[in-house]
Amino acid sequence: MLKNPGPSYSFRVSLDMPEGTDALSRLMAAVGRVGGEIMEMKTPAQNDGKIVREILVYAPDEDREREILKTIGALEGFRTFDVIDCTFLRHTGGKIEVVSKIPMANRDDLAMAYTPGVARISLAVSEDIERAYDLTIRKNTVAIVTDGSAVLGLGDIGPEAALPVMEGKAVLFKSFGGVDAFPICLNTKNPEEIIQAVKWIAPGFGGINLEDISAPRCFEIEQRLKKELDIPVFHDDQHGTAVVILAGLINALKIVGKRIEEITVVVNGLGAAGIASISLLSAAGVRKIIGCDRGGILYRGRQEDMNPFKAELALTTNPEGLKGGLADALRGADVFIGLSRPGLLQGKDISKMARDPIVFAMANPVPEILPEEAEPYAAVVATGRSDYNNQVNNVLCFPGLFRGALDCHARDINQEMLLAAVHAIATAVKADALRRDFIIPSIFDPTVQPRVAAAVMEAARKTGAARSRKAYISPINRS
Amino acid sequence: MLKNPGPSYSFRVSLDMPEGTDALSRLMAAVGRVGGEIMEMKTPAQNDGKIVREILVYAPDEDREREILKTIGALEGFRTFDVIDCTFLRHTGGKIEVVSKIPMANRDDLAMAYTPGVARISLAVSEDIERAYDLTIRKNTVAIVTDGSAVLGLGDIGPEAALPVMEGKAVLFKSFGGVDAFPICLNTKNPEEIIQAVKWIAPGFGGINLEDISAPRCFEIEQRLKKELDIPVFHDDQHGTAVVILAGLINALKIVGKRIEEITVVVNGLGAAGIASISLLSAAGVRKIIGCDRGGILYRGRQEDMNPFKAELALTTNPEGLKGGLADALRGADVFIGLSRPGLLQGKDISKMARDPIVFAMANPVPEILPEEAEPYAAVVATGRSDYNNQVNNVLCFPGLFRGALDCHARDINQEMLLAAVHAIATAVKADALRRDFIIPSIFDPTVQPRVAAAVMEAARKTGAARSRKAYISPINRS
Repeated sequence: MLKNPGPSYSFRVSLDMPEGTDALSRLMAAVGRVGGEIMEMKTPAQNDGKIVREILVYAPDEDREREILKTIGALEGFRTFDVIDCTFLRHTGGKIEVVSKIPMANRDDLAMAYTPGVARISLAVSEDIERAYDLTIRKNTVAIVTDGSAVLGLGDIGPEAALPVMEGKAVLFKSFGGVDAFPICLNTKNPEEIIQAVKWIAPGFGGINLEDISAPRCFEIEQRLKKELDIPVFHDDQHGTAVVILAGLINALKIVGKRIEEITVVVNGLGAAGIASISLLSAAGVRKIIGCDRGGILYRGRQEDMNPFKAELALTTNPEGLKGGLADALRGADVFIGLSRPGLLQGKDISKMARDPIVFAMANPVPEILPEEAEPYAAVVATGRSDYNNQVNNVLCFPGLFRGALDCHARDINQEMLLAAVHAIATAVKADALRRDFIIPSIFDPTVQPRVAAAVMEAARKTGAARSRKAYISPINRS
Repeated sequence: MLKNPGPSYSFRVSLDMPEGTDALSRLMAAVGRVGGEIMEMKTPAQNDGKIVREILVYAPDEDREREILKTIGALEGFRTFDVIDCTFLRHTGGKIEVVSKIPMANRDDLAMAYTPGVARISLAVSEDIERAYDLTIRKNTVAIVTDGSAVLGLGDIGPEAALPVMEGKAVLFKSFGGVDAFPICLNTKNPEEIIQAVKWIAPGFGGINLEDISAPRCFEIEQRLKKELDIPVFHDDQHGTAVVILAGLINALKIVGKRIEEITVVVNGLGAAGIASISLLSAAGVRKIIGCDRGGILYRGRQEDMNPFKAELALTTNPEGLKGGLADALRGADVFIGLSRPGLLQGKDISKMARDPIVFAMANPVPEILPEEAEPYAAVVATGRSDYNNQVNNVLCFPGLFRGALDCHARDINQEMLLAAVHAIATAVKADALRRDFIIPSIFDPTVQPRVAAAVMEAARKTGAARSRKAYISPINRS
């Protein structure tokens, strides 16, 4: 499983090869035999029985990339050259750059952008610090802060190795939300030190996006920073995931005809995303939530595998004091939300749930149950993967969420703002388009981010999280 | 003095005004009378005796901007509208942005730039941390770190108000050196905390440019960071200034026909730039340097107005143990380098120097002596100002310096690299172009930065500061 050829393992290679369809057929067959797929072909040169072709090949993994290449090279009359792995090529030299928005072609440009002109701007900000929101990058800039302790499915790989992921996140912030985001990869894993570092660098940023910091440290870090800073602080692995799951769940409930107040939801996995999802589900009106993890069902008084955040959760979930394992929790439940490990769930578990089960199997990259195994038993299935329907993807949330927060100079991202994002995402799927395999909008739907931004900004205004807007005034047209 | 109209205080304004040359003449005269100058004029609309013109006006200061505007509005038949201060307009929303270097138009783009493809890149870096230099922004990115304690001539205005200056610096880094630089404005002034903050954020950067941190804290911060980090750390206010001064001095000495080993140099002002200049002058072969500050001539055993850095300096400068004030120091000296305060130097002081005095009056924005007052007495005069000849401008150094350091993955910026930059800048003025009013190349001379970068890289290689270069290898074409 999981071994379809795809762009993540793709390469371009040039070939000296014989002319004619026979050679082409041999090439196609050979690539297919070792699991590859030719996606593009160009023919830059041709002469006298020999031809140069350049092909793009998708492979299922890195070993297979090499094998395909070797196989092609061994074909009679073939020679390979200029091989380049497409994924590595995209990352070469980093994925983002810092560019100037203003010209710098002559002395007048310099006099306005730097000394002596810039002194006027610095003075204006020093006289009224709120002016940083119209006269500096603080207006549109977010720090993506990580310690590299819980990067994707890779675990604790450290700040340098986390950087490619943070750059990717910055690309998404800009491409989907127009937000300038910059990676800050910290060389410490101590929560107090992370909090201190973020507080020190905060003056240059309009918001903080915490990323890939392992639980339970991430909870304390986020809570403290929210309290101690007056700019939005958001841990995407927690709340971004929770927002998109809840958006999908709301749409799934429309399909199965159940009311959110009446359902029982089992959340398996009590890390960053699990705990945040339970909190948001509860805020959205779900009354009966059962948490599960390696220690089985979470109940009041459980002793094994606890931390202060789970202990707090045990007080507000599992109202019937259920004990046992995941299978026990699922009996009669309406919704399974997995944020745990591959292969934990089987068809027979789903068959013991209430009618029309909803399954969110979000373990990444391999879900708790593959959609093809779950679909015979479940009414709606969602995963975190782009190669199946119903992808729960945080990209639906964070760019628009920060767009809205920055545009109203928000002090915070509060629960009302999160719920506003949830409903904006859910209603981006029109009623007549809603189907069991289309409960979540595409990340490339251009209407999603502006909807999220507008909804978040409105919620910020209503709840007082937005700063009052000041119109831009230059000193000579001040009235 | 210092009140010429310029771009720093410029504005655009639209005018409803009468047709004809008479009205135009009245406008020009009125603007000139209150100290302004009309630099551009457009005529977007005209009908029936009335005309709309848009003008760009340079003023000497902000009060005069308002006065000019009022004066125009009071002219008979004139109405002003749509006023905008050009300097404030350029800074609106910040001067830099973070942009993606890669496409993000479809799922394949996402799969390569983010999950799952990015995991391959993170793994490659985690297996060999040096690969951060080819696969991440570390290859080309510098942090511009400040605490906002000594910003331009404004002093301690804090990190938010320093941000416009740091953004301007980032614009210069990119425009002149192709370096991606990002401002980090720290909410602490404690040296230990600044050192700690920089060490925590260092994994994401290929170099650290310290900026506008007040002396003497800047010395300890830089020295410690140079020792404790394995990437280049550079305090521009110290070494950038020293490099360009020395480059100018070398050329000035060619004009007056003196050898660097034989001159006596008086450095007035023993802050960041003064102390660094003395150190670099000494490394370049100057044997007799006399330091001066508010406490007068620095000598071994002086008690007033000292710090550990001045105490160290007292051991290696002023070999004859001279005491007294600036005028005493200057008697018979060949070179005056002022990094102090406006108006400290007078023609009669220069007249007591040795033959063909060289005067670098660098106090900013108002020099120790204005060039028009110094020129009758001195052979060569330089200042920090763009409106006089011989501008000592750090922009000549830092972009090319970091370009060279980044391109060879330097661990450090050492004195040999600084001296290489000095000679690259000095020799950018060709022998046949050298004149008393042209000892320093223009910052817009496109040959300067590549020369500096190449010279710095060569020095880094010779001194072992360069890391060995690894060719880029993607996993499938590894031999």
